Amino acid sequence: MPTDPSPFLPVEAQLDLITKGASEIIPAADANSADSLRVRLEESRKSGTPLRIKAGFDPTAPDLHLGHTVLMRKLRHFQQLGHTVIFLIGDSTALIGDPTGKNQTRKPLTREEIATNAETYKAQVFKILDRDKTEVRYNSEWLDKLSYYDIVKLMSRFTLSQMIEREDFHKRFANEEAISLHELMYPVMQGYDSVALKCDVELGGTDQKFNLMRGRDLQRDAGQKPQIILMTPILEGLDGVQKMSKSLGNAIGINDPAPDMYGKLMSISDELMWKYWIFLTDKKISEIKEMQDLVAAGKLHPMQAKKDLAHAITADFHSAAAADTAAENWSTQFQQKGVAEDLPEVTVSLASEGLQADGAVRIAKLLHLAGLAASTGEATRKLAENAVSINGEKFSGKIISREVLGESPTLRLGKRAVRVKWTP
Amino acid sequence: MPTDPSPFLPVEAQLDLITKGASEIIPAADANSADSLRVRLEESRKSGTPLRIKAGFDPTAPDLHLGHTVLMRKLRHFQQLGHTVIFLIGDSTALIGDPTGKNQTRKPLTREEIATNAETYKAQVFKILDRDKTEVRYNSEWLDKLSYYDIVKLMSRFTLSQMIEREDFHKRFANEEAISLHELMYPVMQGYDSVALKCDVELGGTDQKFNLMRGRDLQRDAGQKPQIILMTPILEGLDGVQKMSKSLGNAIGINDPAPDMYGKLMSISDELMWKYWIFLTDKKISEIKEMQDLVAAGKLHPMQAKKDLAHAITADFHSAAAADTAAENWSTQFQQKGVAEDLPEVTVSLASEGLQADGAVRIAKLLHLAGLAASTGEATRKLAENAVSINGEKFSGKIISREVLGESPTLRLGKRAVRVKWTP
Repeated sequence: MPTDPSPFLPVEAQLDLITKGASEIIPAADANSADSLRVRLEESRKSGTPLRIKAGFDPTAPDLHLGHTVLMRKLRHFQQLGHTVIFLIGDSTALIGDPTGKNQTRKPLTREEIATNAETYKAQVFKILDRDKTEVRYNSEWLDKLSYYDIVKLMSRFTLSQMIEREDFHKRFANEEAISLHELMYPVMQGYDSVALKCDVELGGTDQKFNLMRGRDLQRDAGQKPQIILMTPILEGLDGVQKMSKSLGNAIGINDPAPDMYGKLMSISDELMWKYWIFLTDKKISEIKEMQDLVAAGKLHPMQAKKDLAHAITADFHSAAAADTAAENWSTQFQQKGVAEDLPEVTVSLASEGLQADGAVRIAKLLHLAGLAASTGEATRKLAENAVSINGEKFSGKIISREVLGESPTLRLGKRAVRVKWTP
Repeated sequence: MPTDPSPFLPVEAQLDLITKGASEIIPAADANSADSLRVRLEESRKSGTPLRIKAGFDPTAPDLHLGHTVLMRKLRHFQQLGHTVIFLIGDSTALIGDPTGKNQTRKPLTREEIATNAETYKAQVFKILDRDKTEVRYNSEWLDKLSYYDIVKLMSRFTLSQMIEREDFHKRFANEEAISLHELMYPVMQGYDSVALKCDVELGGTDQKFNLMRGRDLQRDAGQKPQIILMTPILEGLDGVQKMSKSLGNAIGINDPAPDMYGKLMSISDELMWKYWIFLTDKKISEIKEMQDLVAAGKLHPMQAKKDLAHAITADFHSAAAADTAAENWSTQFQQKGVAEDLPEVTVSLASEGLQADGAVRIAKLLHLAGLAASTGEATRKLAENAVSINGEKFSGKIISREVLGESPTLRLGKRAVRVKWTP
């Protein structure tokens, strides 16, 4: 057998890692046409030339949370495979503000705010990407050089109808909410970034599809091969329902201290735990499936799987030692706390209607059943007011897993506290 | 009485000339607010500073006709009053193409086509404006210097709804006809021209109102006094119905030879003659009124008034001598021709239903009544096929005045010819 001279892994192995947790790839990864990820990888391997992988970030929300890292982890996969990852800071597109998913015009940032945010962004991003192997670029490099004539030409390439087809623009237009003309420039300018960078692949969230496709259009116009588009899903937050977002209060910040990060991860439902395994760790799909089988067979406690997840992610953003400490503290606080306290005991049946879903307990329902709130509605309000503690820790989420609650959890609402005794 | 040191005429006298034949002035010329033409003129007179008057021309249709001269004549009025007239050649806006009144995207011109057209334009325009007193500018001077950032800022000033309110965009949008994104830049860039030129007054056709108003918006943003807007009407062509336009075949080109120009002017209806007196000559409204009174009193033959008009306009674009010659030739050809010919005579009653309107005769009807066509429909087709001659000259219009026809006109359709004898 001849030796394989390529510095790159075989294409199948690369595709395994790249497609893990990808929502959609355009054109499909296994497409036969020359315009496919597979063919791009084959050509790259044959010629020994790394692919150019771009992901753009508007430095408008500098506090990153785990939702943002789904995409960055995917960038890291490409980096680990030897490709060139371009971390593009959209300093000049930020002057417009991405209208994606917005129902009003963004307030434009100043150059100074953008520069500050970009620095904060980088400091956080290099917890995930390898700083030495990442090409950091700013789109002001080429956008600020565009002339009036260039911009007229780029804009002439698209029609108003194409723009209005976008869900967010369409809604705003239909609802007579203002769309400023400069917002129509955003998808065009983002598309031009791909031309300037000669990208082979662009990564983005599923909500970015429209913008990502414009890059393909403009690259074709410029005589370049249109980039492959790889979209990552929008990650749910701690509640398992809504998109992770700082403003919704369901986010884990990548700058959160290790104990907070660990604790928040331990509070998620079992169902969400498997998603987080897929999107927030590098564990292979086959290994995750194995764990799921063990849990199903009763050979692995789901709480252990969750502890492993919380440890893995915390170690990623801090260190293995910090994760160890966080895990110990958590066990002390949440599993042992409350046992020593002398509190009135109330009996709650685990079979109570509406109490559990997928191994997670609805806190508002539990507070009501435990007699601390007159109704689940009242309990929900109290949770929102941050008036509830569980096992001695403030809690304002909606659900918490059985494992985290433990065998005899303590609940506190305002000045009243009880210890729960479960019955089947 | 102190002597008046201002080089400018009193404001009332200036307003007399400026407002003649203006369709609309914004804000109204007699507005009391500081933001009015009257106050601008007063300030200019007091300080001895000429006002800056802008009119922009896209060098896309280099063959000017009399319809275009309505606006240019208004520029000349300002020039005669001592103000600074800026003849702005929109070489860079022409790269976009004004979408006003269009139902499809214009094909962009190349820089070369624009430069050629601009030269042709200038050659024609200085038949009206005083070359030495005219500031000729190209908007590439400032538009080509706009940065990406400048353009984003200008575009952010307006919303999509504002643009879609425009009748032409609205229609195209409602009819699902493509509007390219760069077309939305046009009104913004035209508005910016006024900022760059620090205009006091901008002139334009009534169909330009939307674009002209954007200049006021952007000047306010830039801390300038918003320009006064003066709109001139869209002139009807020879048929007296549709807008004068080369493609509709009802235009008099300013490069037309003197005999053609004179002859075409002699073919218009009496009603249209008075409009042309107002919009295409410098005769004062009071003098025109006087002529109308004389005609009404039977003291002036309307044909004489029309000959005076044709002479005045022809002299304007050629010379008094050329106009004299054209008038003589016309009389020879149209009024005397046919008398010598030995043609069959047909009697046509001037009271025939549908023959006359406002002193003009419907040619198709006349051809039918004279027995040359089986129906007015057939006659209309023959006119369109250019198969008709009147008084020895090819004719393809719809109407012709009684005076031009004369007392015993000759009509020819194909090989058949007759002499008409009018009866009451």
